[in-house]
Amino acid sequence: MNIPFTKLVSALPASTPFVGPETLERQHGNTFSARIGANESAFGISPKAAEALHAAVESNGCSWYCDPENHELRAELAEYHKVGMDEICVDAGIDSLLGLTVRMLVEPDTPVVTSDGAYPTFLYHVEGFGGAVHKVAYKNYHEDPQALLAKALETKARLVYFSNPDNPMGTSLSSETVQQMINKIPEHSLLLLDEAYIEFATDNPSPAIDTTNPQVIRYRTFSKAYGMAGMRIGYVIGHRDIIAGFNKIRNHFGVNRLAQAAALASVRDTEFLPSVRQQVEAGRQLIYTMANEMNLEYLPSSTNFVAVDMGHGDNTRAILDQLVEQGIFIRMPGVAPLDRFLRVGVGSPDEHTAFEKAFKLLAPAILATN
Amino acid sequence: MNIPFTKLVSALPASTPFVGPETLERQHGNTFSARIGANESAFGISPKAAEALHAAVESNGCSWYCDPENHELRAELAEYHKVGMDEICVDAGIDSLLGLTVRMLVEPDTPVVTSDGAYPTFLYHVEGFGGAVHKVAYKNYHEDPQALLAKALETKARLVYFSNPDNPMGTSLSSETVQQMINKIPEHSLLLLDEAYIEFATDNPSPAIDTTNPQVIRYRTFSKAYGMAGMRIGYVIGHRDIIAGFNKIRNHFGVNRLAQAAALASVRDTEFLPSVRQQVEAGRQLIYTMANEMNLEYLPSSTNFVAVDMGHGDNTRAILDQLVEQGIFIRMPGVAPLDRFLRVGVGSPDEHTAFEKAFKLLAPAILATN
Repeated sequence: MNIPFTKLVSALPASTPFVGPETLERQHGNTFSARIGANESAFGISPKAAEALHAAVESNGCSWYCDPENHELRAELAEYHKVGMDEICVDAGIDSLLGLTVRMLVEPDTPVVTSDGAYPTFLYHVEGFGGAVHKVAYKNYHEDPQALLAKALETKARLVYFSNPDNPMGTSLSSETVQQMINKIPEHSLLLLDEAYIEFATDNPSPAIDTTNPQVIRYRTFSKAYGMAGMRIGYVIGHRDIIAGFNKIRNHFGVNRLAQAAALASVRDTEFLPSVRQQVEAGRQLIYTMANEMNLEYLPSSTNFVAVDMGHGDNTRAILDQLVEQGIFIRMPGVAPLDRFLRVGVGSPDEHTAFEKAFKLLAPAILATN
Repeated sequence: MNIPFTKLVSALPASTPFVGPETLERQHGNTFSARIGANESAFGISPKAAEALHAAVESNGCSWYCDPENHELRAELAEYHKVGMDEICVDAGIDSLLGLTVRMLVEPDTPVVTSDGAYPTFLYHVEGFGGAVHKVAYKNYHEDPQALLAKALETKARLVYFSNPDNPMGTSLSSETVQQMINKIPEHSLLLLDEAYIEFATDNPSPAIDTTNPQVIRYRTFSKAYGMAGMRIGYVIGHRDIIAGFNKIRNHFGVNRLAQAAALASVRDTEFLPSVRQQVEAGRQLIYTMANEMNLEYLPSSTNFVAVDMGHGDNTRAILDQLVEQGIFIRMPGVAPLDRFLRVGVGSPDEHTAFEKAFKLLAPAILATN
């Protein structure tokens, strides 16, 4: 029997946006001593969240389905962001929310604009629903709002994906620049503003949230600063008509009940985020210092990773391969010219030490010969 | 701005397959003393799973993304079911897996067959992708394989949904009957065999798994017997070409890392499942005994709930409303003639006592007047 997949799914390649570190460990037969490649937090979860999790495991936190309305968490987030509860949708992480967004708005050949080298999982979803992807280049290793808007106009794009701060470069644009971008969104477009790393930026580059504007969807997550990547919980903020769309198609019981409890405790813990920010800032400084010592350029970071310049993509790949071989899990941007940078995640002190030692031993030789 | 939703999503109603108990609590301003309406387990998770969860919370179980290949868990499940690892796909629960199944195989107007009154979340997904739903009636409160197959032939259905044991009636058909059904699947159809409750059946009604047959997808979950409904983890077993389809479109990092750890510990804990089975069997006997004492008919159950006959849907609704008002969370089948039954979940001893007390006080009056 030929399995009667839809035309769309038949045509899709077998693909995955990222290879996981566990896969690499199995391939190499080793265990990573530093895991600084997936922008995960090295600083764990809020002690209040941990407490909530232990308590939930001992009560019915595992056995009961989640509250499908995510009521308590949305109430807390609405208060936190000064928006209405019906202007927030909680789901199993930004990946899932991007998938729902695309499903709501993209049909075969719907034009979509993104930056060449930006978050692959967004592309994975657009391709999964048959959208027509149009890419613009980064400008000075920032995403380029003018180019994105021009391409959106040119292609009559329905969606424009833009992350600020940016992954994989770690750069950010000012709130004024982003606000200007919002002001100029073409009438046929929606701006997907991915703010997964917003908590790490020292000068808040996020313009005021305006949920009366149906053309902007903001994406926030507990995966990064809150240290809950493995828990799968994030949310969107937007116009209530957009949120109603998410509610039409999401898996209502799809959020982990433990994740709900941990997220709620995290938002209420006002001390945790400042402490993480401080540790991430200290970790970035370690990377800057190392780069300076080695006469390497880097991009000042608004995230929990730093893009360090290897001069050429071939260098980056050679160094990355050796690092992985030596037990350092690390990643790099997938496309030129961004691939001249190695994306160095802020790790725990031990992870940073392991990385720095390996990097200082192997990088100079590779950089000297190329 | 009119939000440019796809035609499909624009046409969808605002709907949710189920109202959650937390929503009812908020509406009624009470807290349920018994939660026996969502077929959740009253017997918690494996102690080994709890141990794994506590350990994971204290290490990086929350902060690290899951292994996107679910390698360890698939290896364990492959061994358990005697199938290949590439014949299993793990994802965030059967709801999510049904959503992926429909997305892979259903386009607008693709014919799909199910039973009238069967699992609403499957319908939610089919409607979400524009499929044409054809329903057949239950026969003696069992799903009716012959009717399902006849309707599949008649409508040239691509998908046939069939759950065994059945939800919401709790009945099951023998493995021979199901095998005969598999043997007769029309050449254009796939059978979605939902076995969420299979561990509760005393005489295993699941025919041997045959992954060489590309026309059958089996759905299994950790939500029910393993007590992990809130954790969102389940899997499908099927032909490797089907599994490859799931891998093309699933959220590769979408499974909760804690859920992976708990599921793995649960499968390895050979003592837990027999103990749950025993407690569920004892709980069913309590419900049977109560029904007998009250001269009420019931359907012998292969699940963790018992359908008890109220004679008429109006009776069931009246009794259910009063139970909810009195702090008993309970549900009933949504359509006639199934709605003459109240679906009584096996609860903890305290929950059963609370239910029995409330039910015995209020039911006789309602049943006598109708």
